[in-house]
Amino acid sequence: MQTSTLSRPFPALPDIAGCTRGTATAGYKPWDRADITLLAFAEGTTVAGVTTCSKCPSPEVEHCRRILPGGTARGLVVNAGNSNAFTGKRGAEACALQVAEAARLLGCAPTEIFASSTGVIGLPLPADKAQAGVRAAHATLGHASWHEVTAAIGTTDTFPKAALREAIVGGTKVSLVGIIKGSGMIAPDMATMLGYIVTDAAIDAPLFQAMLSHANARTFSCITVDGDTSTSDTVLAFATGGAGAPRITSNESPGADAFAAALTDLCRELAQLVVRDGEGASKFIEIRVAGAESDESAHRIAKSIANSPLVKTAIAGGDANWGRIVMAVGKAGEPAERDLLSIRFGGIEVAANGMVVAGYDETPVAAHLAGQDIDIAVEIGLGDGRATVWTCDLTHGYISINADYRS
Amino acid sequence: MQTSTLSRPFPALPDIAGCTRGTATAGYKPWDRADITLLAFAEGTTVAGVTTCSKCPSPEVEHCRRILPGGTARGLVVNAGNSNAFTGKRGAEACALQVAEAARLLGCAPTEIFASSTGVIGLPLPADKAQAGVRAAHATLGHASWHEVTAAIGTTDTFPKAALREAIVGGTKVSLVGIIKGSGMIAPDMATMLGYIVTDAAIDAPLFQAMLSHANARTFSCITVDGDTSTSDTVLAFATGGAGAPRITSNESPGADAFAAALTDLCRELAQLVVRDGEGASKFIEIRVAGAESDESAHRIAKSIANSPLVKTAIAGGDANWGRIVMAVGKAGEPAERDLLSIRFGGIEVAANGMVVAGYDETPVAAHLAGQDIDIAVEIGLGDGRATVWTCDLTHGYISINADYRS
Repeated sequence: MQTSTLSRPFPALPDIAGCTRGTATAGYKPWDRADITLLAFAEGTTVAGVTTCSKCPSPEVEHCRRILPGGTARGLVVNAGNSNAFTGKRGAEACALQVAEAARLLGCAPTEIFASSTGVIGLPLPADKAQAGVRAAHATLGHASWHEVTAAIGTTDTFPKAALREAIVGGTKVSLVGIIKGSGMIAPDMATMLGYIVTDAAIDAPLFQAMLSHANARTFSCITVDGDTSTSDTVLAFATGGAGAPRITSNESPGADAFAAALTDLCRELAQLVVRDGEGASKFIEIRVAGAESDESAHRIAKSIANSPLVKTAIAGGDANWGRIVMAVGKAGEPAERDLLSIRFGGIEVAANGMVVAGYDETPVAAHLAGQDIDIAVEIGLGDGRATVWTCDLTHGYISINADYRS
Repeated sequence: MQTSTLSRPFPALPDIAGCTRGTATAGYKPWDRADITLLAFAEGTTVAGVTTCSKCPSPEVEHCRRILPGGTARGLVVNAGNSNAFTGKRGAEACALQVAEAARLLGCAPTEIFASSTGVIGLPLPADKAQAGVRAAHATLGHASWHEVTAAIGTTDTFPKAALREAIVGGTKVSLVGIIKGSGMIAPDMATMLGYIVTDAAIDAPLFQAMLSHANARTFSCITVDGDTSTSDTVLAFATGGAGAPRITSNESPGADAFAAALTDLCRELAQLVVRDGEGASKFIEIRVAGAESDESAHRIAKSIANSPLVKTAIAGGDANWGRIVMAVGKAGEPAERDLLSIRFGGIEVAANGMVVAGYDETPVAAHLAGQDIDIAVEIGLGDGRATVWTCDLTHGYISINADYRS
């Protein structure tokens, strides 16, 4: 797989006190790359998470949903190459056995071991390989780099994706490392978006969860490659407390605002990296909708534009086809008045008050659309609701990847 | 544009007493084909119609919505090559002027003239060409064949699409002729699905409307090419009474059931013809969902499958990727239990009870998927709700048509 033309270099990432990393080859596919990852966390590590809205989630997602209310974590296992989704009781048993083995190795309860699987759907995770793999990964704890871990959780990703943010909490610097995999919601193997954030801050789990949910609504929930939602999407965040900074216990704690802002900012960068690795993507598209009746309405309109194959193919072709934007606004089912709409590409107004602007000159718009980063702004003209989403264009590459693939 | 490999031959269609046809070249684009159509109806003709759910409809759609409650029609004007959508006051004025000219020519009120426009979005319909065109079409009334009319309403269609049904009403045969244009909801020019049905039956308008709405919910509302909804979708049905059959005034009238069944059946054939001309389509796909909690829930699940780019590209590639079906069921947001789902391709069960069937043999499934007509059946296992939708696959042809086009 060729690296996406929209890729970004892998950043330098610090170790996080209270978190050690291991990887190994479980052999979920006939390959010799690392395909199992184990992160071990110090006692007292708190956890927050968000999972797919799919009604048919994998057993790993169900396990995470079940134990998240506990609020503490001692380990995370990630399997790549097999999503274990839609595998009935056998899949659920394999998940439970692997979690139990990790708990035994780390000396904790199974309710403190989080798990994810990504890859082919419908094949039960092989329980023997999963347990042997977690033992092998455990043996390497402390020896795997962030780059190795990020590569090990990937499937069809064309580049490893990670980001770093820092915040000052009570005078002490804390770091937030995020790693993520996924070529959008979708990928040839039904691969998924899996994101993990590890910080050496100390924060109470309910507040951590609230901050992550807030960040998720503005970042991961605002990206789309083609509107397909995986059975395994998961974002988990772990706080080890290893930096020795004062514990964040409420929104009024010193550094709480800075930490929350850094968390949201980190999530935004990770989310955008996934779009930049969207299947077949040749352009990164930001869509901003303002003037809707509410933020929720703006979000639905923006998603309708972002998921429209007609809009996405027009951008792929460098075509300033604002008529397709109107179409997508119209089909969103949200309050909108044709004669109040205005549309800008790259800041240049092309349509307003129900029709093309007087003296419309396509030249600067075409120049903007010839670039890699496309900016679309839509003003609805009805209220104060606003939202931003990110997506990529729809190209022959997408068809080649998905139609030519065999399960 | 090459004719779709899924095309159907144009049927032999009878004249309908009480309806005369004319076409002419208004010249909405630099071409010499007919691009304006006029149908004239006898006094007493009743009308029913359904229009797009888009919140940004064309002025022609708004005009039709406004006059439909009147229940009578004397004329229909269809412009091809310019959709007149998103054209503000100038577009609305052009529509009103053309309708007024047709009303003058036919000696009726403007509220009895229906109108549609299809083609490029954002350019106001040229009022002078529109009025001259309707005069030229009027001069040819009685001289245009159904085939010529069907060709004249088309834009990017690769073959003309029409169908015929008959019913016995009180011992007298009535005919229903339907013509339709559209390459799915979508097309390079933002062209639209426009469908017209003309029958020599006599039927009260409110009942006619109820029957058309019923048929629409089971036919036109059950097709999708890529989920994009046009600003101009319109289906209108006209009943001239020219057959001399007894008037249908209630569901208990002689022949009412037969007429309603013929109407629904005709709409189904027209709807499927549109899918067969879906942009880039190489396969026609029927998706049947049963066992959902309600018919509405089944419809939403079926649409989620039909609109999934992952499912559509898998079918294009002949890949029995039932995992993508599970994904699409899961993302529909409707009640579904992974472990109760079962999935069949071409009648062959591939997955049941949360996993692939024992001894799964892909050979007969692959043989089915190698054909042009694909059958997917999903059993949800929760209730009695059922629905059927029709779609086509997603191929390189779709990208070529839509990304390489310039507005």
